[in-house]
This record gives sequence, structure tokens and C-alpha cells, in this order.
Amino acid sequence: MRGREVTAFHRAPNAPTSGKTMTPSFDDLRAAAQRIRPFAVETPLVESAAINKRVGGRVLLKAEVLQATGSFKFRGACNRLLQFDLAERRAGVVTFSSGNHALAIAAVAQKLGIPATILMPSDAPRAKIDGTRANGASVCEYDRKADDREAIAAKIVSLTGAVFVPPYDDFAIIAGQGTVGLEIARDLERVQVRADMLLLPHSGGGLAAGAAIALRTLGPDTSVLAVEPAAFDDLGRSLISGQRENNSPLAHSICDALQVSSPGALTFSINRQLLAGALTVTDDEVREAMRVAYHHLKLVVEPGGAVALAAILAQKIDVRGKAVVGVLSGGNVDSAEHARYLSVASLDSET
Amino acid sequence: MRGREVTAFHRAPNAPTSGKTMTPSFDDLRAAAQRIRPFAVETPLVESAAINKRVGGRVLLKAEVLQATGSFKFRGACNRLLQFDLAERRAGVVTFSSGNHALAIAAVAQKLGIPATILMPSDAPRAKIDGTRANGASVCEYDRKADDREAIAAKIVSLTGAVFVPPYDDFAIIAGQGTVGLEIARDLERVQVRADMLLLPHSGGGLAAGAAIALRTLGPDTSVLAVEPAAFDDLGRSLISGQRENNSPLAHSICDALQVSSPGALTFSINRQLLAGALTVTDDEVREAMRVAYHHLKLVVEPGGAVALAAILAQKIDVRGKAVVGVLSGGNVDSAEHARYLSVASLDSET
Repeated sequence: MRGREVTAFHRAPNAPTSGKTMTPSFDDLRAAAQRIRPFAVETPLVESAAINKRVGGRVLLKAEVLQATGSFKFRGACNRLLQFDLAERRAGVVTFSSGNHALAIAAVAQKLGIPATILMPSDAPRAKIDGTRANGASVCEYDRKADDREAIAAKIVSLTGAVFVPPYDDFAIIAGQGTVGLEIARDLERVQVRADMLLLPHSGGGLAAGAAIALRTLGPDTSVLAVEPAAFDDLGRSLISGQRENNSPLAHSICDALQVSSPGALTFSINRQLLAGALTVTDDEVREAMRVAYHHLKLVVEPGGAVALAAILAQKIDVRGKAVVGVLSGGNVDSAEHARYLSVASLDSET
Repeated sequence: MRGREVTAFHRAPNAPTSGKTMTPSFDDLRAAAQRIRPFAVETPLVESAAINKRVGGRVLLKAEVLQATGSFKFRGACNRLLQFDLAERRAGVVTFSSGNHALAIAAVAQKLGIPATILMPSDAPRAKIDGTRANGASVCEYDRKADDREAIAAKIVSLTGAVFVPPYDDFAIIAGQGTVGLEIARDLERVQVRADMLLLPHSGGGLAAGAAIALRTLGPDTSVLAVEPAAFDDLGRSLISGQRENNSPLAHSICDALQVSSPGALTFSINRQLLAGALTVTDDEVREAMRVAYHHLKLVVEPGGAVALAAILAQKIDVRGKAVVGVLSGGNVDSAEHARYLSVASLDSET
């Protein structure tokens, strides 16, 4: 995703809402897993001897870049839309996003025959807009600076009766993303590893909240840590102050998928209780992680999807002698951009 | 892998042998799956709407590039070495290979504390030789033209008592590779798809034989097809003539992992009964498949690992309205080579 996804959505008093506002339970995650099972990819935990050697610990990486539509967002979208009743299916779904949530909602809606209207900023990458259209959604482009997307979404909801599905601050979305945590715990058991830490990219906080709920039951000794771009360290500051802090409107990062203005309301209420902390990574550290993923894991990872691996490689936490799991959350990066980040020189060198 | 792996090994009368020579049963595959479970990655079946649309069918791809050591070869190596008794573990393992089998045997041997000696041609890529050494194996380089590697291997066996493990013509190796088929069948059931066809890369034939044994029980209506580089169509000709045919010593292909001189003896005895046929692909079709895997699946696939997808994309069989599974069998390609095959122009274009 590019641009600021769901900027300030949770702060808009008249923003459309959807679903329950309470915290999903472990059983809600299990129900979500059962629900999305025929549609979602059960992605593997992958490992590289070179990475293990480099950091002096055991590093297992959850390859969500292989999820349907190229990111974990498919899980939440799938769990939410599968719970639409017949009237809702007919009325359709509305959301806004400039990237992975848009692609996921469009793909699931198409599969279920639900009309989808997705608000996307007109300066979003053409590939993302075209991809969302190719998935059968009706895309409304808006001017990021002049238009109020919450107001447009609310208008569509009131005119059509369509259901608004937010990108993260939603019971079913969080439960869906939490299935990442269930699969990680199951695979750790299979390979007989007890993880000391789980690192996840953090933007709105749905993935971190869902996975933390899973680990609270299945791996209570595992510290769950969120990773943010250095310029978007709203969660880290929010965890310290105890209230949702904002990022600067001038902040910049290559992690286009991790650029909300502040943590979600529901997700933060969960994450402030369950997360052990938050780490930050620089753009250079992210590029290095993208290079390592390409060379040693055979995976294309988008910048925002690479922050957990970046934190591990940059040793933002001490992983020596420890077992650590990182989530590679998405792979939707333009090929030219990917090649540029890898750079011709680094394509030839072993990292 | 580069060069000719196990060239003419099965024809050498004095070649060292290992294990049983009969066909593994379905139960042998299940035992193998249980054995390798704590070590191997359960790789996902991945899918892309763009690929499905392009061919007009449903295409599911088994991402064995994510297997430990970057190819399915890890499964067979793991299954074989885990069955070494204490005396054999002490005596060590000997094999020859210029690529994926070498990396797999070295990694498993290191994990189990088994000394490994691997004969590699001195013109094998340094990265492969270095990678095998980094996995703790003792690498003996030999001159591909002047030396007789079967004789060298036999000498090491007679001097050290080490056990020779061939790359494919081996009961336990075939059973190990067959776990690919078990996982495919399980995942197809989960996503509620009945596959019309399963396409696999073919070199020595261990993967095809193992997977075909799995499908005979779990998917008897699925046609299992092997795919070869056009210049190495030994299996296709062998299936027609009923005997093992040879490739030209002058044959060339970018698929360095698929360059044996003829099918294995044991594997061919299985494959001639269980395979529905063999297809061939050109180097250009392979490059296109590598591009598509990179763009739409976020995966780095080596040339030999991409032939099944190449056959699907080039419509070597009619997949319209059908469900077809392809195995992406390995991802060990040098980054510079990968970038060259993708080419700068194609990095920018959507395929």
C-alpha cells in the first residue's frame, strides 16, 4: 500500500462503523480459522541457515506474502465478509484503502458475489487501483487533500445500505488476522520450537492485536513485539504515554503500508495490554531485510512487510541464542521498485 | 544445480548402491512424512488470480522453493539419513551432486551430526560449493571430464565404510519426495478442489515417482504429468519406447537442475506405470514462468523449478476450465542470473 491508509479514520466522529467493538476471544480466532479455511493459504514458517548464523539465534519467518492477494489482510477481509447475512450480501460492502485491504476486500467480495465499492485516493499506484478493479470492485477515486473519504463512505452507506468494513478497528477483522498467530503456534509445535519472541509489523494494529490474542493462550511465554518505521512510531509513543499518539503529517518512510496517523482505538485497547513493546527500523534497515528475504528466502517482500525481519537483522532486540518468529506480512511491491531497493550492486553480492 | 547431475550413474555397473530397490508404498510415504515432520517445511499451495485468468483455469502451485535448503531434495535426504543406524551415522554419508541434492544432504547430515563427503564437479558454481561447505560437508572437487565420480565414491565407501546415498534411484529418497504429493492432496481437500492434473519437473524422476505414488491413492482421477526441458526429453522418449533413452551429450538448457543423461532405473520402473505422460518446455517458456512467479507469486524460482508452471502458461496441455497443480521445485538460482532472466525490461512490465 502507498500513502496513508485510513488516516485518522478512528478520530472521525461521524465515521461509519461496523461489527462489535469488544475484544475477540481465543475461541473467536478459532472460529475465524474454521471459517476462512477453504479460502486462505496456510502459509509456512520458513528459515535460512544464513540468517540464523548471521544473528546467532533461530529465526522463523511467517511467509504471509504468499497469502491470497499478497498479504495477511485477506484473512480479516475473508472472516468479515463470510459473516454477512443475505441482505448484507445483496447490499454490498464499502471500504477505503489505497492498498492491501482494498485488494483483499475486492477479492473476497468477488468470490462471494458481494458488490464492493472501494474508495481509493487518485494518487494511489495505478497497479493497485487496477488490481482492485480487476478483482471486480467498483473503485471510487477521491482527492486525498480535498475530499473527506469518511463522509463519502458514510454517504454511500446511507444511500445503498452497504456495510462499511474498516481496515483494522473491527472485531471480525482482528479475529481474522489472529489466525496468523494460531498457525504460527501450530507450526512451532510441529518443529518443536518454543519461541522467545514474536515480531509483527504494526500499522493500524489489527495483525498485532489478533496475533497477541492467539499467543496469550498458545504461547504465554512468548514476548509479542510490534515493529514500526522510525518516522511512524506512534505505537511506541502511545504505549509509553498510555494514550493514542499521532505521527507527524510530514513523516516519510518507504513502508507505504505502515502509515496510519495513530493506532486504532480497539486495536490499541488490546495491544497496550498484550504487547511487550514496540521497536522501530529505518528505511535502510528495511531495504537490507528485503535483500535478505530475496537472497536467502526466495521471497519478494514489500517494505512494510519486511520491518519485523529488519528489526531482527539489525539486532534491535538481542536474539543471540534465542528463537524468534517474524511475520513477513505482505509482498505487494512494484517490480521496478523492488529491483531498485535491491539495487544492481546488491543483486550480485551475497548478503 | 548446474551441469549434469548423476550423469549415467545408474548405468555404472560398479556404482555404489544404497537402500532397498523396490517401489515405496503409500504407507512408506506416510512413514516418511512422520519422520521428516520436525525438520521439513510444509510448503503451501499458492494461487494467483492473474495466472488463473491468463490460462482460463484454476492453477495451484506447490512452493517447494520455500523448503529447507531451497528445494524438495531436502525431503528425500532427510528421510534417508534419519534411517541411518548408529554405526552408519558414525561412518558417514557419501554422495555426488552439483547442486540441490548436495545442499540437502549436507544440511541434514550437519543437523544429525553425520560426517558428509560430497563429490562436486570443480566447475560447479562457487556459491553451490561454498554453500555445501557452509553446511558442514567435506567437499571433494573432481574434474567432470577426466575423473570417474562413481569410482571415487566407491573408493570412499570402501575406505571409510560410509553409506552412499544416490540422488533419486533410492527407496527412501523416493518416499521422501513423495511427501510433496501427500501435502498437495491434503491441501486440495482443504480448499475443496479436485485436481484434473498434477505437473512436476522431471530429471532423475524421484519427485515424479514419489508424488505419483501419493496420488494413486489420494487422487486416482488426477493425471500426473512430468515436464522436461526440450533438449532433455529423455523421459518422454523413454515412455514411448518403453526403455530408458539417453539425451545427447551436446544438449543444452538453462534448467541446470534437470540435466541427467537418462531416467533412473527404479524411478522409471515406477513412472512408466504411473505417469500419464511427459511434456517439454523451451528456455524462453521457462524464463517467462520465472517472471510470472516473481511478479504474481512473489517467489524466486530457479529455471529447473519453473518448468511445470512454464508448461501450464504455454498451454502445453489444455487447462481451460480445469484445476491443475504445478510443483515449483526449487529456488536456488544466483541473484544475478535471476535478474538477467527477468531482464530489466520485464521487471517493469506486468506479465
